Amino acid sequence: MDYYLFGIFLLACGAAAATGAVFQPGRWYETLEKPPWTPPNWMFPLAWTTIYLLISFAGARVAVLEGNAYAMAFWASQAAFSTLWTPIFFGLRRMKGALLVMVPLWLSVAGCTLANFQLDFLAGLAFLPYMAWVTVAAALNASVWRLNPGVKPIVPADL
Amino acid sequence: MDYYLFGIFLLACGAAAATGAVFQPGRWYETLEKPPWTPPNWMFPLAWTTIYLLISFAGARVAVLEGNAYAMAFWASQAAFSTLWTPIFFGLRRMKGALLVMVPLWLSVAGCTLANFQLDFLAGLAFLPYMAWVTVAAALNASVWRLNPGVKPIVPADL
Repeated sequence: MDYYLFGIFLLACGAAAATGAVFQPGRWYETLEKPPWTPPNWMFPLAWTTIYLLISFAGARVAVLEGNAYAMAFWASQAAFSTLWTPIFFGLRRMKGALLVMVPLWLSVAGCTLANFQLDFLAGLAFLPYMAWVTVAAALNASVWRLNPGVKPIVPADL
Repeated sequence: MDYYLFGIFLLACGAAAATGAVFQPGRWYETLEKPPWTPPNWMFPLAWTTIYLLISFAGARVAVLEGNAYAMAFWASQAAFSTLWTPIFFGLRRMKGALLVMVPLWLSVAGCTLANFQLDFLAGLAFLPYMAWVTVAAALNASVWRLNPGVKPIVPADL
């Protein structure tokens, strides 16, 4: 594996990671009604860190293979939508908007997983935890949206 | 050119475009001190739309070429940091934080431009307007940060 490539893909994940650091759930998230199967708070950074390492590994492996076009396009797309989700949910408290972001995010992760499996078995495997986690995250987003109908969005331009 | 690939890269740009739509500059941006060379408001969506089309075209061309590893890794990285910038600047009003985001964004765009030129002349050319615009945007970010020392960040978790 080319470690510089791994580093660039990990850097890209850093953009999504930064949203988690600067858009903190805080007290507001504590007060939300959540389904009983909500993962405990400590699991989120652990899951994401594991996923970032795995998908950067997958990216670095697939980037050097011929026929990687769809795998690379979907990798880029998941990175962008993964960076978008947190600001919409925690920055704007737009739960329905965040759920809409989950659609292209989920599809991009699914597309990348399938494309990876066609190129490199390990790279495909490395995307499976992400596939599972983004499915849970989408279900959690939908559930929290349903359970908290009274949440008011933040409108930064009005502050 | 493979139009499905073009579409996936354009979808990825849609994440960054969405930040511009939901984190509106609004009245707050109007009140900021800005340097005399600040581009007029109408130029921002026009510039970004042109850039999204050009870099999606470049992405689709380079994705099918052998030896595209660095070009694709940098493409993904610019997509993620481009999506990160707006929420930090307009969502949190963290001007120094946004300027820090400009560093990996600028480097990713530069890396992608260089890697593209080594693979495909048109794909390299297609990144030049982005290179110019992100340089202007970084300078504007730095200038606005200097000119408006009293701006208070928004802390969504405290609202």
